Amino acid sequence: MSLIKSCGFVRALLKNKDLKSLIEKDIKLIDKKLDEYLIGSNPKELWQAMRYTALLEGKRLRPILALESTRICGADHLEKVIPSACAIEMIHAYSLIHDDLPSMDNDDFRRGKPSNHKAFGEAVAVLAGDALNSYVYQMIIEHTPKTLKPEVLLNVINIISKASGPNGIVGGQVADILAEGKDFDENTYNYICEYKTAGLFEVAMKIGAVITEASKEKFEALSNYGKLIGIAFQIADDILDITSTQKVIGKTPGKDLQSGKATYPIVFGVEKSIKRVNALCKEAIGSIKSKNIDSALLLKIAEEIITKVSNNDS
Amino acid sequence: MSLIKSCGFVRALLKNKDLKSLIEKDIKLIDKKLDEYLIGSNPKELWQAMRYTALLEGKRLRPILALESTRICGADHLEKVIPSACAIEMIHAYSLIHDDLPSMDNDDFRRGKPSNHKAFGEAVAVLAGDALNSYVYQMIIEHTPKTLKPEVLLNVINIISKASGPNGIVGGQVADILAEGKDFDENTYNYICEYKTAGLFEVAMKIGAVITEASKEKFEALSNYGKLIGIAFQIADDILDITSTQKVIGKTPGKDLQSGKATYPIVFGVEKSIKRVNALCKEAIGSIKSKNIDSALLLKIAEEIITKVSNNDS
Repeated sequence: MSLIKSCGFVRALLKNKDLKSLIEKDIKLIDKKLDEYLIGSNPKELWQAMRYTALLEGKRLRPILALESTRICGADHLEKVIPSACAIEMIHAYSLIHDDLPSMDNDDFRRGKPSNHKAFGEAVAVLAGDALNSYVYQMIIEHTPKTLKPEVLLNVINIISKASGPNGIVGGQVADILAEGKDFDENTYNYICEYKTAGLFEVAMKIGAVITEASKEKFEALSNYGKLIGIAFQIADDILDITSTQKVIGKTPGKDLQSGKATYPIVFGVEKSIKRVNALCKEAIGSIKSKNIDSALLLKIAEEIITKVSNNDS
Repeated sequence: MSLIKSCGFVRALLKNKDLKSLIEKDIKLIDKKLDEYLIGSNPKELWQAMRYTALLEGKRLRPILALESTRICGADHLEKVIPSACAIEMIHAYSLIHDDLPSMDNDDFRRGKPSNHKAFGEAVAVLAGDALNSYVYQMIIEHTPKTLKPEVLLNVINIISKASGPNGIVGGQVADILAEGKDFDENTYNYICEYKTAGLFEVAMKIGAVITEASKEKFEALSNYGKLIGIAFQIADDILDITSTQKVIGKTPGKDLQSGKATYPIVFGVEKSIKRVNALCKEAIGSIKSKNIDSALLLKIAEEIITKVSNNDS
């Protein structure tokens, strides 16, 4: 079993014009800030390789969720969350670089361009991933406005570090690798979904609540939304791998089936998978509604996942 | 050109009984704490791979320098520096795992045992390095006593992150890779020495001063000592690669010569290299003496490097 990152589904999802219009400004903001934070001079080749993947055209959904979570809890704190939001995107980029390596998924392309090791060689790709992984903490500390309390920033760093390491993405990726060639185990699939994919969605929602010092109840509701939506994304992406066309998801469909990888829809069928995605998204909506959280974007994301998957109109 | 990490020379250096007796207790303390901080349950294989390299028998010189720097500036702060000192050793371990990979130095052995990718496979080795690199920040935040001011801990994290990433070890390693097969360039050699090897020695000295809130002058003197000693270590290690025997340095000597790698002693000769090591160590001693810093350990390390390299009695 090996899960595909949910980039294909994000791409399909954001074809919806209402959703796109809700986030267009934020995409531009994040792109501008990523570009600004990733300026380094030496060694030139290393910074080029780091920028190559981190600045690949993307929908920036994870950092945008961090902005939205901050807006929900206290919009005047927005400046304070931007470096941490960009850190999440950089960690996502580092994980993509290492996932694509020949010793991992051995993918030659990423978002329609040669993967990092194809463009810069394997050694520099490993190191570009390492560099992004280390750099985020320096970047957060140096770029976050000093008006944010140091103890709050430590909490943010702790959340990001935990979600990135053995108790997060890396743990999920190892579980994913170890599950390959074994019989499908639903608990393991859930573990991988939760840590490898949903982790950064969850972190994005958490840090908005932490930076604004929101109530514990709000923190939990937003965090829960991120986790549920993240898992729904992964299953939706796995469904699309079976039902969609290359044009829609920007990569070869049917890759899981061809390679004999076991995913949720392959094992339980598309119908049961759609039902699970629906249930996850409805639970995510319920989580925020129960705390009277009013966010057009969070609602639209959950609803659009349901629509996209149910109608299979991708 | 590709530098060898200075483990071989540390091993040779610490054969000196006086020096060994000065650090025996600290080695045990660091080993105990590394073991304690690296307990994780899931995925089991990942934690095993992380522990495999981080807990390899070693002299723990970098974390010990952090303890010594703290003792010099304010011994009652010792508990506060231990997690950060161990973080430096974990980052050193992660860099060794990635350096040994087939796409990098392709080393099958490390400190007499199969290297991480030989023991766990390449994919898990890449991820074990990644996991250590991410985990240190969570570990530092969760284990540092709350009596340390948050703004001071943020400063420590910033220093460690900077020395690990593109402006530190990773930058040095990329420069090292890019220099391979090219004519020897002294500036590049110095850059690689400074960032790839000396960086963590410098950081170790810095964090003791930062945690104890020492004066700027003391901070600079200790930081400078770490940097100079780190560069001296690298050149001394490169000298030993030419002049020593396998028994002494625990790895195949003459590796640089055989592989056609350009190091300082290969290009400028052993005699000029010894002179440079002497000058670096004397400058390091001068740096601390000028600020009336009294440390038997720091003096002994610098003196012993001079003795070991000058007499070539390793």
